[in-house]
Amino acid sequence: MKKIEIQPLTAAAFAPFGDVIARRETPDMIINQGYCGRHHDLAQLDFGSGRAGISLFDAKPRELPYFCDMVERHPKGSQAFIPMSMTRFLVIVATDRNGTPAGLRAFLTEPGTGINLHRGTWHGVLTPLEAPGLFAVVDRIAEDSNLEEYHFETSYEIVQP
Amino acid sequence: MKKIEIQPLTAAAFAPFGDVIARRETPDMIINQGYCGRHHDLAQLDFGSGRAGISLFDAKPRELPYFCDMVERHPKGSQAFIPMSMTRFLVIVATDRNGTPAGLRAFLTEPGTGINLHRGTWHGVLTPLEAPGLFAVVDRIAEDSNLEEYHFETSYEIVQP
Repeated sequence: MKKIEIQPLTAAAFAPFGDVIARRETPDMIINQGYCGRHHDLAQLDFGSGRAGISLFDAKPRELPYFCDMVERHPKGSQAFIPMSMTRFLVIVATDRNGTPAGLRAFLTEPGTGINLHRGTWHGVLTPLEAPGLFAVVDRIAEDSNLEEYHFETSYEIVQP
Repeated sequence: MKKIEIQPLTAAAFAPFGDVIARRETPDMIINQGYCGRHHDLAQLDFGSGRAGISLFDAKPRELPYFCDMVERHPKGSQAFIPMSMTRFLVIVATDRNGTPAGLRAFLTEPGTGINLHRGTWHGVLTPLEAPGLFAVVDRIAEDSNLEEYHFETSYEIVQP
Protein backbone atom coordinates (compact mmCIF):
# COMPACT_ATOMS: atom_id res chain seq x y z
CA MET A 1 0.00 0.00 0.00
CA LYS A 2 1.29 3.42 -0.93
CA LYS A 3 1.52 5.98 1.86
CA ILE A 4 0.70 9.64 1.27
CA GLU A 5 1.92 12.16 3.84
CA ILE A 6 -0.39 15.00 4.74
CA GLN A 7 0.80 18.50 3.81
CA PRO A 8 -0.34 21.85 5.16
CA LEU A 9 -2.89 23.52 2.90
CA THR A 10 -1.32 26.56 1.29
CA ALA A 11 -2.70 28.59 -1.61
CA ALA A 12 0.44 27.98 -3.66
CA ALA A 13 0.49 24.21 -3.17
CA PHE A 14 -3.25 23.94 -3.78
CA ALA A 15 -3.37 26.23 -6.84
CA PRO A 16 -3.34 23.40 -9.43
CA PHE A 17 -6.48 21.96 -7.82
CA GLY A 18 -8.50 24.89 -6.58
CA ASP A 19 -8.73 27.83 -4.21
CA VAL A 20 -8.06 28.09 -0.49
CA ILE A 21 -10.93 30.11 1.00
CA ALA A 22 -9.25 31.89 3.89
CA ARG A 23 -8.79 35.39 5.18
CA ARG A 24 -6.06 37.40 3.45
CA GLU A 25 -3.46 39.11 5.62
CA THR A 26 -5.55 42.27 5.54
CA PRO A 27 -9.18 42.60 4.46
CA ASP A 28 -9.96 44.08 1.05
CA MET A 29 -12.63 46.37 2.51
CA ILE A 30 -13.68 47.49 5.96
CA ILE A 31 -17.47 47.70 6.13
CA ASN A 32 -20.25 48.13 8.70
CA GLN A 33 -18.75 51.21 10.35
CA GLY A 34 -15.47 49.45 11.11
CA TYR A 35 -17.03 46.31 12.57
CA CYS A 36 -16.37 43.97 9.65
CA GLY A 37 -13.59 43.14 7.22
CA ARG A 38 -14.51 41.79 3.80
CA HIS A 39 -12.04 39.38 2.22
CA HIS A 40 -13.40 39.66 -1.27
CA ASP A 41 -14.07 37.09 -3.99
CA LEU A 42 -11.81 34.24 -2.90
CA ALA A 43 -12.88 31.44 -5.27
CA GLN A 44 -13.09 30.81 -9.01
CA LEU A 45 -16.65 29.55 -9.31
CA ASP A 46 -17.83 27.88 -12.51
CA PHE A 47 -21.28 26.37 -12.93
CA GLY A 48 -21.20 25.89 -16.72
CA SER A 49 -24.69 25.23 -18.05
CA GLY A 50 -26.16 24.82 -14.55
CA ARG A 51 -26.77 27.34 -11.79
CA ALA A 52 -25.16 28.01 -8.41
CA GLY A 53 -26.68 26.39 -5.34
CA ILE A 54 -25.97 26.09 -1.64
CA SER A 55 -26.42 22.68 -0.02
CA LEU A 56 -25.42 21.32 3.38
CA PHE A 57 -23.29 18.19 3.70
CA ASP A 58 -23.55 16.44 7.05
CA ALA A 59 -20.61 14.01 7.12
CA LYS A 60 -19.37 11.54 9.70
CA PRO A 61 -15.84 12.27 10.90
CA ARG A 62 -13.03 9.94 9.77
CA GLU A 63 -9.81 9.00 11.50
CA LEU A 64 -6.14 8.90 10.58
CA PRO A 65 -4.67 6.86 9.07
CA TYR A 66 -7.39 7.23 6.41
CA PHE A 67 -7.57 4.75 3.57
CA CYS A 68 -8.51 6.32 0.25
CA ASP A 69 -9.82 3.80 -2.27
CA MET A 70 -11.52 6.14 -4.73
CA VAL A 71 -11.63 9.67 -6.03
CA GLU A 72 -14.31 11.46 -8.01
CA ARG A 73 -14.66 14.56 -10.16
CA HIS A 74 -17.37 16.87 -11.42
CA PRO A 75 -16.65 17.65 -15.08
CA LYS A 76 -19.31 20.37 -15.36
CA GLY A 77 -18.63 22.64 -12.41
CA SER A 78 -16.60 23.80 -9.43
CA GLN A 79 -17.42 22.67 -5.88
CA ALA A 80 -16.68 24.66 -2.73
CA PHE A 81 -16.64 23.24 0.81
CA ILE A 82 -17.11 25.67 3.69
CA PRO A 83 -16.81 24.17 7.18
CA MET A 84 -19.51 25.38 9.60
CA SER A 85 -17.40 24.68 12.68
CA MET A 86 -13.87 25.76 13.60
CA THR A 87 -12.40 22.35 12.85
CA ARG A 88 -9.96 20.99 10.29
CA PHE A 89 -10.60 18.61 7.43
CA LEU A 90 -8.59 16.48 5.08
CA VAL A 91 -8.51 17.38 1.39
CA ILE A 92 -7.38 14.67 -1.02
CA VAL A 93 -6.80 15.67 -4.65
CA ALA A 94 -5.05 14.32 -7.72
CA THR A 95 -3.96 15.58 -11.11
CA ASP A 96 -5.45 14.13 -14.26
CA ARG A 97 -3.39 12.03 -16.65
CA ASN A 98 -5.42 11.11 -19.75
CA GLY A 99 -8.64 10.72 -17.81
CA THR A 100 -7.05 8.89 -14.87
CA PRO A 101 -6.12 10.38 -11.48
CA ALA A 102 -2.39 10.56 -10.82
CA GLY A 103 -0.09 12.04 -8.20
CA LEU A 104 -2.50 11.85 -5.26
CA ARG A 105 -1.91 14.49 -2.57
CA ALA A 106 -3.44 15.09 0.85
CA PHE A 107 -3.76 18.46 2.55
CA LEU A 108 -4.98 19.42 6.02
CA THR A 109 -6.90 22.67 6.42
CA GLU A 110 -6.63 25.15 9.27
CA PRO A 111 -9.77 26.05 11.27
CA GLY A 112 -11.74 28.81 9.56
CA THR A 113 -10.65 27.71 6.10
CA GLY A 114 -12.66 26.34 3.19
CA ILE A 115 -11.68 25.14 -0.26
CA ASN A 116 -13.04 25.42 -3.78
CA LEU A 117 -12.25 22.61 -6.20
CA HIS A 118 -11.93 23.81 -9.76
CA ARG A 119 -14.12 22.16 -12.38
CA GLY A 120 -12.97 18.63 -13.15
CA THR A 121 -10.50 18.25 -10.27
CA TRP A 122 -10.13 14.68 -8.99
CA HIS A 123 -10.80 14.62 -5.23
CA GLY A 124 -11.53 12.31 -2.34
CA VAL A 125 -14.89 12.41 -0.60
CA LEU A 126 -15.53 14.91 2.18
CA THR A 127 -13.30 13.90 5.10
CA PRO A 128 -13.82 15.82 8.33
CA LEU A 129 -11.51 14.64 11.11
CA GLU A 130 -13.58 16.08 13.94
CA ALA A 131 -17.27 16.43 14.74
CA PRO A 132 -19.52 18.08 13.71
CA GLY A 133 -18.80 17.37 10.05
CA LEU A 134 -21.20 20.02 8.79
CA PHE A 135 -20.27 21.88 5.60
CA ALA A 136 -21.95 24.33 3.27
CA VAL A 137 -21.29 23.29 -0.32
CA VAL A 138 -21.53 25.72 -3.22
CA ASP A 139 -21.77 23.77 -6.43
CA ARG A 140 -23.57 23.34 -9.73
CA ILE A 141 -27.27 22.54 -9.60
CA ALA A 142 -28.72 20.83 -12.67
CA GLU A 143 -30.57 17.67 -13.61
CA ASP A 144 -27.86 16.08 -15.75
CA SER A 145 -25.08 13.84 -14.45
CA ASN A 146 -21.94 15.58 -13.21
CA LEU A 147 -20.01 12.81 -11.48
CA GLU A 148 -17.15 10.51 -12.51
CA GLU A 149 -15.66 8.05 -10.05
CA TYR A 150 -12.31 6.26 -10.17
CA HIS A 151 -11.66 3.27 -7.91
CA PHE A 152 -8.02 2.41 -7.14
CA GLU A 153 -6.88 -1.21 -7.28
CA THR A 154 -4.96 -0.62 -4.07
CA SER A 155 -5.96 1.92 -1.42
CA TYR A 156 -3.72 4.81 -0.47
CA GLU A 157 -2.92 5.21 3.22
CA ILE A 158 -3.09 8.88 4.25
CA VAL A 159 -0.80 9.50 7.22
CA GLN A 160 0.66 12.24 9.36
CA PRO A 161 4.16 13.19 8.18
CA MET B 1 -37.13 54.23 21.24
CA LYS B 2 -39.03 51.33 19.73
CA LYS B 3 -38.19 47.88 21.09
CA ILE B 4 -38.12 44.84 18.82
CA GLU B 5 -38.29 41.41 20.43
CA ILE B 6 -36.11 38.68 18.96
CA GLN B 7 -37.95 35.73 17.41
CA PRO B 8 -36.63 32.24 16.68
CA LEU B 9 -35.59 31.86 13.05
CA THR B 10 -38.02 29.54 11.28
CA ALA B 11 -38.33 28.95 7.54
CA ALA B 12 -41.99 30.02 7.57
CA ALA B 13 -41.42 33.27 9.46
CA PHE B 14 -38.37 34.13 7.37
CA ALA B 15 -39.90 33.24 3.98
CA PRO B 16 -40.84 36.84 3.03
CA PHE B 17 -37.18 37.83 3.43
CA GLY B 18 -35.12 34.87 2.34
CA ASP B 19 -34.11 31.27 3.00
CA VAL B 20 -33.01 29.52 6.17
CA ILE B 21 -30.01 27.37 5.26
CA ALA B 22 -30.34 24.44 7.64
CA ARG B 23 -30.53 20.67 7.51
CA ARG B 24 -33.91 19.26 6.59
CA GLU B 25 -35.38 16.56 8.85
CA THR B 26 -33.88 13.92 6.58
CA PRO B 27 -31.20 14.42 3.94
CA ASP B 28 -32.24 14.47 0.27
CA MET B 29 -29.43 12.08 -0.67
CA ILE B 30 -27.04 9.81 1.16
CA ILE B 31 -23.64 9.92 -0.52
CA ASN B 32 -20.05 8.81 0.09
CA GLN B 33 -20.93 5.19 0.90
CA GLY B 34 -23.30 6.18 3.67
CA TYR B 35 -20.94 8.62 5.36
CA CYS B 36 -22.61 11.84 4.25
CA GLY B 37 -26.11 13.27 3.91
CA ARG B 38 -26.73 15.93 1.28
CA HIS B 39 -29.39 18.52 2.08
CA HIS B 40 -29.81 19.77 -1.43
CA ASP B 41 -30.21 23.25 -2.89
CA LEU B 42 -31.41 25.21 0.11
CA ALA B 43 -31.29 28.79 -1.16
CA GLN B 44 -32.75 30.85 -4.00
CA LEU B 45 -29.62 32.48 -5.37
CA ASP B 46 -29.88 35.38 -7.82
CA PHE B 47 -26.87 37.26 -9.14
CA GLY B 48 -28.62 39.17 -11.94
CA SER B 49 -26.10 40.65 -14.35
CA GLY B 50 -23.16 39.80 -12.06
CA ARG B 51 -21.59 36.47 -11.11
CA ALA B 52 -21.54 34.39 -7.94
CA GLY B 53 -18.62 34.79 -5.56
CA ILE B 54 -17.52 33.57 -2.15
CA SER B 55 -16.05 36.10 0.27
CA LEU B 56 -15.24 35.92 3.97
CA PHE B 57 -16.66 38.45 6.42
CA ASP B 58 -14.74 38.78 9.66
CA ALA B 59 -17.05 40.66 12.02
CA LYS B 60 -16.70 41.79 15.62
CA PRO B 61 -19.36 40.31 17.90
CA ARG B 62 -22.12 42.60 19.20
CA GLU B 63 -24.09 42.46 22.41
CA LEU B 64 -27.74 42.56 23.40
CA PRO B 65 -29.53 44.86 23.65
CA TYR B 66 -28.40 45.85 20.16
CA PHE B 67 -29.28 49.24 18.76
CA CYS B 68 -30.11 49.19 15.08
CA ASP B 69 -29.87 52.61 13.44
CA MET B 70 -29.72 51.60 9.78
CA VAL B 71 -30.57 48.89 7.31
CA GLU B 72 -29.30 48.29 3.82
CA ARG B 73 -30.28 46.32 0.74
CA HIS B 74 -28.69 44.98 -2.41
CA PRO B 75 -31.08 45.61 -5.31
CA LYS B 76 -29.12 43.51 -7.82
CA GLY B 77 -28.62 40.20 -6.06
CA SER B 78 -29.14 37.77 -3.20
CA GLN B 79 -26.68 37.51 -0.30
CA ALA B 80 -26.09 34.36 1.78
CA PHE B 81 -24.36 34.30 5.17
CA ILE B 82 -22.86 31.00 6.31
CA PRO B 83 -21.38 30.98 9.83
CA MET B 84 -18.02 29.19 10.04
CA SER B 85 -18.40 28.41 13.75
CA MET B 86 -21.22 26.71 15.67
CA THR B 87 -22.51 29.98 17.07
CA ARG B 88 -25.70 31.98 16.69
CA PHE B 89 -26.21 35.35 15.05
CA LEU B 90 -28.85 38.01 14.93
CA VAL B 91 -30.70 38.63 11.66
CA ILE B 92 -32.54 41.93 11.31
CA VAL B 93 -34.81 42.38 8.30
CA ALA B 94 -37.63 44.64 7.16
CA THR B 95 -40.26 44.71 4.46
CA ASP B 96 -40.24 47.42 1.82
CA ARG B 97 -42.95 50.07 1.68
CA ASN B 98 -42.50 52.33 -1.36
CA GLY B 99 -38.72 52.24 -1.13
CA THR B 100 -38.59 52.59 2.65
CA PRO B 101 -37.99 49.83 5.22
CA ALA B 102 -41.02 49.03 7.38
CA GLY B 103 -42.00 46.41 9.94
CA LEU B 104 -38.51 45.69 11.26
CA ARG B 105 -38.06 42.16 12.64
CA ALA B 106 -35.20 40.43 14.43
CA PHE B 107 -34.47 36.70 14.34
CA LEU B 108 -31.91 34.60 16.18
CA THR B 109 -30.35 31.65 14.35
CA GLU B 110 -29.54 28.25 15.77
CA PRO B 111 -25.93 26.96 15.58
CA GLY B 112 -25.25 25.29 12.22
CA THR B 113 -27.69 27.55 10.40
CA GLY B 114 -27.10 30.14 7.70
CA ILE B 115 -29.42 32.48 5.85
CA ASN B 116 -29.86 33.74 2.31
CA LEU B 117 -31.39 37.17 1.84
CA HIS B 118 -33.42 37.45 -1.32
CA ARG B 119 -32.54 40.20 -3.78
CA GLY B 120 -33.56 43.60 -2.48
CA THR B 121 -34.37 42.58 1.11
CA TRP B 122 -33.75 45.31 3.69
CA HIS B 123 -31.43 43.96 6.39
CA GLY B 124 -29.24 45.01 9.27
CA VAL B 125 -25.48 44.58 9.08
CA LEU B 126 -23.89 41.27 10.05
CA THR B 127 -24.43 40.84 13.79
CA PRO B 128 -22.68 37.87 15.38
CA LEU B 129 -23.32 37.62 19.11
CA GLU B 130 -20.34 35.40 19.86
CA ALA B 131 -16.75 35.13 18.68
CA PRO B 132 -15.41 34.26 16.18
CA GLY B 133 -17.65 36.25 13.88
CA LEU B 134 -16.36 34.56 10.73
CA PHE B 135 -18.82 34.02 7.87
CA ALA B 136 -18.65 32.87 4.28
CA VAL B 137 -20.76 35.15 2.13
CA VAL B 138 -22.13 34.08 -1.25
CA ASP B 139 -23.19 37.14 -3.16
CA ARG B 140 -23.08 39.01 -6.45
CA ILE B 141 -19.68 40.06 -7.72
CA ALA B 142 -19.63 42.97 -10.16
CA GLU B 143 -18.11 46.42 -10.53
CA ASP B 144 -21.32 48.44 -10.37
CA SER B 145 -22.96 49.71 -7.19
CA ASN B 146 -25.34 47.31 -5.43
CA LEU B 147 -25.98 48.98 -2.08
CA GLU B 148 -28.74 51.20 -0.70
CA GLU B 149 -28.68 52.35 2.92
CA TYR B 150 -31.52 53.69 5.04
CA HIS B 151 -30.77 55.48 8.31
CA PHE B 152 -33.52 55.60 10.92
CA GLU B 153 -34.23 58.86 12.75
CA THR B 154 -34.54 56.87 15.97
CA SER B 155 -32.69 53.61 16.63
CA TYR B 156 -34.54 50.38 17.27
CA GLU B 157 -33.58 48.48 20.42
CA ILE B 158 -33.34 44.75 19.75
CA VAL B 159 -34.06 42.80 22.91
CA GLN B 160 -34.66 39.31 24.22
CA PRO B 161 -38.39 38.56 24.52
